[in-house]
Amino acid sequence: MAAVSSAKVYTIIHVVRALVLGTAGSLSLQERPKPSADGECVIRVLAAGICGTDLELLRGYAGFSGVPGHEFVGVVEEAPAEDGAWIGRRVAGEITVGCGACAGCRAAGRGHCDVRTVVGIRDRDGAFAEYLALPARNLHAIPDAMDDTTAVFVEPAAAACRIVEQVPIDRHTKTAVVGAGRLGLLIAQVLAAHGARVMVVVRGKMGRTAAEALGLQTSSVDAARSSLARQMDLVVDATGSAEGFATAATLVRPRGTIVMKSTIHGETPVAFSPLIVDEVTLVGSRCGPFDRAIEMLAAGRIQVAPLVAATYPLEQYAAAFEHAARGLKVILRPD
Amino acid sequence: MAAVSSAKVYTIIHVVRALVLGTAGSLSLQERPKPSADGECVIRVLAAGICGTDLELLRGYAGFSGVPGHEFVGVVEEAPAEDGAWIGRRVAGEITVGCGACAGCRAAGRGHCDVRTVVGIRDRDGAFAEYLALPARNLHAIPDAMDDTTAVFVEPAAAACRIVEQVPIDRHTKTAVVGAGRLGLLIAQVLAAHGARVMVVVRGKMGRTAAEALGLQTSSVDAARSSLARQMDLVVDATGSAEGFATAATLVRPRGTIVMKSTIHGETPVAFSPLIVDEVTLVGSRCGPFDRAIEMLAAGRIQVAPLVAATYPLEQYAAAFEHAARGLKVILRPD
Repeated sequence: MAAVSSAKVYTIIHVVRALVLGTAGSLSLQERPKPSADGECVIRVLAAGICGTDLELLRGYAGFSGVPGHEFVGVVEEAPAEDGAWIGRRVAGEITVGCGACAGCRAAGRGHCDVRTVVGIRDRDGAFAEYLALPARNLHAIPDAMDDTTAVFVEPAAAACRIVEQVPIDRHTKTAVVGAGRLGLLIAQVLAAHGARVMVVVRGKMGRTAAEALGLQTSSVDAARSSLARQMDLVVDATGSAEGFATAATLVRPRGTIVMKSTIHGETPVAFSPLIVDEVTLVGSRCGPFDRAIEMLAAGRIQVAPLVAATYPLEQYAAAFEHAARGLKVILRPD
Repeated sequence: MAAVSSAKVYTIIHVVRALVLGTAGSLSLQERPKPSADGECVIRVLAAGICGTDLELLRGYAGFSGVPGHEFVGVVEEAPAEDGAWIGRRVAGEITVGCGACAGCRAAGRGHCDVRTVVGIRDRDGAFAEYLALPARNLHAIPDAMDDTTAVFVEPAAAACRIVEQVPIDRHTKTAVVGAGRLGLLIAQVLAAHGARVMVVVRGKMGRTAAEALGLQTSSVDAARSSLARQMDLVVDATGSAEGFATAATLVRPRGTIVMKSTIHGETPVAFSPLIVDEVTLVGSRCGPFDRAIEMLAAGRIQVAPLVAATYPLEQYAAAFEHAARGLKVILRPD
């Protein structure tokens, strides 16, 4: 065997397109190295949804820079040897990657890891790109019969399903969902599917139309505040606004529950006294069970058609984000 | 029988002493008509405790004017015929009188009545007086072996016991009680008696001394915030201050619970985002089970001696309130 006198190492860098959020809140389509497996699965993105959180990230929430996007469906193209069975499968993915060892993980599971990364939100590139990487344990197979658009809703539908893990619901539960946006309309469907009597409190025509298309009862904010005050067993705030929270606080009955589903940024002035006197419970609620969401979407118990505003190719991200700011669910496709 | 030609009706008004809070926040000892039975029991007050709420009422909280005082022990002197068995008995009393018929009563019990009166707090004269009136259904007999001073603590001890009705507690529950005041030290004892591991977060020397006299572990606010952050399963805010709530929010673990036990007046700026992301539950907590409080006090599972600062005759109300503002439990006796 001949001695190797001078070895040169060539690394071939595969370049892929990704939408990049800069620190100044600017979005641009860039060419980036393709994510490498490195213990995780590499997923080719088929479609990804724009969520309220993405719009907030553009305004500086969480100080994120990198590739946003955390609602996605894609196909696994590479995987570590032990996860080889995932290759070729169409998947959605849980967005939080935890260490499994810290105090947060031990107390409340990997989703609450003290040093977590979160797809497209915290220290981990997301799905508005041709590819992303995630550990196999975060993946959930999408049934063949489910189309890509529906599969994009698995992540937010799981977040909606989280509520029924936290709060007991039955057919006597009088529920109001404040906010008829992307998330509110998923939540209302999940609660109704679990038997609750649901009133969707809407602000604009778009939300009302979509809610009614889904067979949900609606009320304006003013009508709800005047005729349903202190009557609701459960109120879900899906607005992420101080006004939405104030409406929720008005509607909840003594000893009732407010679920805070949308993150309210900054500091909200809260009049705690009436909530304490009324012994109201406030429940923070974040990510939820993908299995249940997939089941409910597959069974048609959660409908998404009335929630889809448009689908854009990744290149038209500017128009897509502009549309998402005034519409319901906008989907980006990198192909 | 001789005809009565001119009848004169004399009404004898019994006059009793009562401490009266005027609308301008002024306290004065006045002579007032003795409360009449009128479907309720008339109770001669033996002793009444000054609570944080009383100090707040003086500053205008709840817009109350009338006789304050809602922690009391007394002897029933008059009662409607059907409640005659109460006459002569020493009692403490639940402070909320509800109609039993409104939406609030139906949803959450008489304590949450929409048109409730509350002893010494809302539309009903209280216990800083020689007499007060309450319906028999609000009364609880005090065991003969329990002294008046201990019996004064039944109402706040019941409020402390309310927490274990709302939140499951066991010997694994790592708990912090923020605030080593009158109420905080009752709460800490109740939680410890239910097996929880309790840390009392203290601000001053007085609270620390009392907590240690009760065999409770203590930590300063700074030490707790730096070494116990995000570790506590359950945190009870017993400060009723925005700073206390902020400390509670720092100590609670992901998916943990904060019980809001002391009313926080006005609007508190709250950073909801971390609480939602951590899926924290906030529970408003008010009045509690008198039976359990009496049991625990009678059994010595709640100790009150280290909490008693002084006892004053009703006439010395000014000195008593001044003492209560800088001390622990101050007791007024009308005799």
